Amino acid sequence: MVSVLDKWLLNTIYRVIGEAPVRISLWNGTKIGPSLEMPIAHVHIRSRRALLRLFINPELYFGDAYSNGDIQLTGDLVQFLEKIYQGMSRSKRNWLQRQIVHWQARPRCNSLHGSKENIHKHYDIGNQFYRMWLDKKMLYTCAYYPSPHGMLEQAQEEKMHHIARKLLLKPGETVVEAGCGWGSLALHLARHYGVKVHAYNISHQQIIHARQRAREEGLDKHVTFIEDDYRNIQGKFDAFVSVGMLEHVGVNNYEELGNTIKRCLKEDGRGLIHSIGRNQPARMNAWIERRIFPGAYPPTLRETMDIFEPENFSVLDVENIRLHYALTLRHWLERFEKNTDQVGNMFDEEFVRAWRLYLAGSIAAFSTGALQLYQIVFAPGASNKIPWTRDHIYRKEEEAEWKQVM
Amino acid sequence: MVSVLDKWLLNTIYRVIGEAPVRISLWNGTKIGPSLEMPIAHVHIRSRRALLRLFINPELYFGDAYSNGDIQLTGDLVQFLEKIYQGMSRSKRNWLQRQIVHWQARPRCNSLHGSKENIHKHYDIGNQFYRMWLDKKMLYTCAYYPSPHGMLEQAQEEKMHHIARKLLLKPGETVVEAGCGWGSLALHLARHYGVKVHAYNISHQQIIHARQRAREEGLDKHVTFIEDDYRNIQGKFDAFVSVGMLEHVGVNNYEELGNTIKRCLKEDGRGLIHSIGRNQPARMNAWIERRIFPGAYPPTLRETMDIFEPENFSVLDVENIRLHYALTLRHWLERFEKNTDQVGNMFDEEFVRAWRLYLAGSIAAFSTGALQLYQIVFAPGASNKIPWTRDHIYRKEEEAEWKQVM
Repeated sequence: MVSVLDKWLLNTIYRVIGEAPVRISLWNGTKIGPSLEMPIAHVHIRSRRALLRLFINPELYFGDAYSNGDIQLTGDLVQFLEKIYQGMSRSKRNWLQRQIVHWQARPRCNSLHGSKENIHKHYDIGNQFYRMWLDKKMLYTCAYYPSPHGMLEQAQEEKMHHIARKLLLKPGETVVEAGCGWGSLALHLARHYGVKVHAYNISHQQIIHARQRAREEGLDKHVTFIEDDYRNIQGKFDAFVSVGMLEHVGVNNYEELGNTIKRCLKEDGRGLIHSIGRNQPARMNAWIERRIFPGAYPPTLRETMDIFEPENFSVLDVENIRLHYALTLRHWLERFEKNTDQVGNMFDEEFVRAWRLYLAGSIAAFSTGALQLYQIVFAPGASNKIPWTRDHIYRKEEEAEWKQVM
Repeated sequence: MVSVLDKWLLNTIYRVIGEAPVRISLWNGTKIGPSLEMPIAHVHIRSRRALLRLFINPELYFGDAYSNGDIQLTGDLVQFLEKIYQGMSRSKRNWLQRQIVHWQARPRCNSLHGSKENIHKHYDIGNQFYRMWLDKKMLYTCAYYPSPHGMLEQAQEEKMHHIARKLLLKPGETVVEAGCGWGSLALHLARHYGVKVHAYNISHQQIIHARQRAREEGLDKHVTFIEDDYRNIQGKFDAFVSVGMLEHVGVNNYEELGNTIKRCLKEDGRGLIHSIGRNQPARMNAWIERRIFPGAYPPTLRETMDIFEPENFSVLDVENIRLHYALTLRHWLERFEKNTDQVGNMFDEEFVRAWRLYLAGSIAAFSTGALQLYQIVFAPGASNKIPWTRDHIYRKEEEAEWKQVM
């Protein structure tokens, strides 16, 4: 027997997701969805408990129920999630709502110890797992595709060149990297641009892996991997670079990050921060924040100004390549799907579904504009040793030139 | 007889300007300045009244006294002003100071009527005057120099192409321009990119001039010049462009500007705003704001987000070309100096000195990093009709390509 409440809950959920072309069915056979149009997905809710939890906190419990099997989805998961994002983005926020979201979003704890815990949860679940679906060099951030028909391996190489060119690195210069992942960028910069790199990371497994690679590649004299927090960076460098760390820093630590950069950058140095971001302030999706990325928060451009403004940095160049992240994630998901048996053996089926949902949901977030990907280049405000134009980023064959008038 | 007060005032002023290598002398022969080092300028204060006023409000009265001759300066005016800017920028502001400056800086009145008054004061002082020192096409905004050895005329052409390329304009598209000056950009876009342009301006003299040029160049069927405020823009367009208007809009009108852009831009449209800006919030130099540019305020990047964030625009590309503005201004000042006799005849010597100071001071502001020049490209948050990379801006000979994956 279907209760009136069940039907009402089902209808409400359907309205909340913007009446997307989705068919939803309940454990007892009740159905809702487009009658004529072909649905892009079929969602089956297997129990009243799942329905109730979905109603109470859809953002959190959809992910949980999808992972544990209480909700089954057939059809196109990415398209389904894109429709959900599009439905949600249609409502324009007023000033008060923005302030509330802004206030809600700010207080998150990424103290020295908290950061270590948060990072350990995500990045230390096993290099073997990431090796199954990332590129060979294990870059776990947005790639740069010169054309949308590019391949992942090449696009990750291009991303590293793109960053190096933006920083106008010269042989013999020194670079500090905050949050270095498995070490690929640091090694790339040393190999191709002749710079010395100090690379920081608080993920133990990543640092072990990176050090081994440095030795294997004969670059351990040029790249030093340091297992420590970015706040403890020591020394003065020609360039600061951070790719995919800002998401884990927390808005209330941005001023301290800016202060750290100021402290470790020479007067005529340059910096680059590569980070997921947003057009409007909002918390990370509750499920991803709880189950996948504890402590993560993608900032708006306005929020990132807490890094630059107090220290009088000049923002020189901002590029938004969110569609490149959607494509990177498509390539990751493709590889992930080819290895689900192995992942299932290593963990379990719930883990497989959770990570599938995370990757598919991230594609949807970038392809619908719910998330952005910013690369921000900056320099101390008084420095005139800044690129004259951005030509050098795009004229790859020629030597980068430092032109100055002043 | 020199009073103790005079000496104390003189010493205080000297300390405030950071003990720059400048010699200052008083009406009675008292001197202060470097004893060994060669001074870059010699400032002569001709009366106690000028000294007192300089002490009370140096920012405002230095300009007034320089203009009316109460202060005489020999030596390098630009270098002198650069030293002053560098001295002032050395002090780092704390959080409270930033809030105070921020609060002070915000409330400025650019109502429909107030804007008309403010714009009239600056832009309607005579096209003949501007013709004497701007380029032939009369572009009164930062040029774009592919190389720092470029010439003004060519760099202004390049600037217009740079903007058109960033907007990825296609023949047959429609463009709305807010604050069109003497009409050059609108005419350029119609001529070279085959677009139809609606261009708005509230300066009567500029609109008259622009309409005449459109007729002379046979472009009056493609470009419509409208003497009205940007807030009254009517219609839907493929692109929005505004070059050098934001400085006159006032921070408290940014949200309304964003709303206007949202209203007049198609769902897959693109926008570009070109504006003077700052790294940290601060009022316009008091003298320039009072005597040259009433109501002007260069915003920080953070402040510009009031335009984009509430309407869920995606910021796609920010370029800071402040050194290009220093160079543009050098070229303007050079031409201005060649025509000071004519300017003196048209107005008077006080006017000549005031404009010399304004141009020299602006060079110093851009070359020391006190002012920035931002070009911001944006698009509605849900649009995927955005450039795949920025390659097309730099590969000039090839056709701009619209690549999409999603």
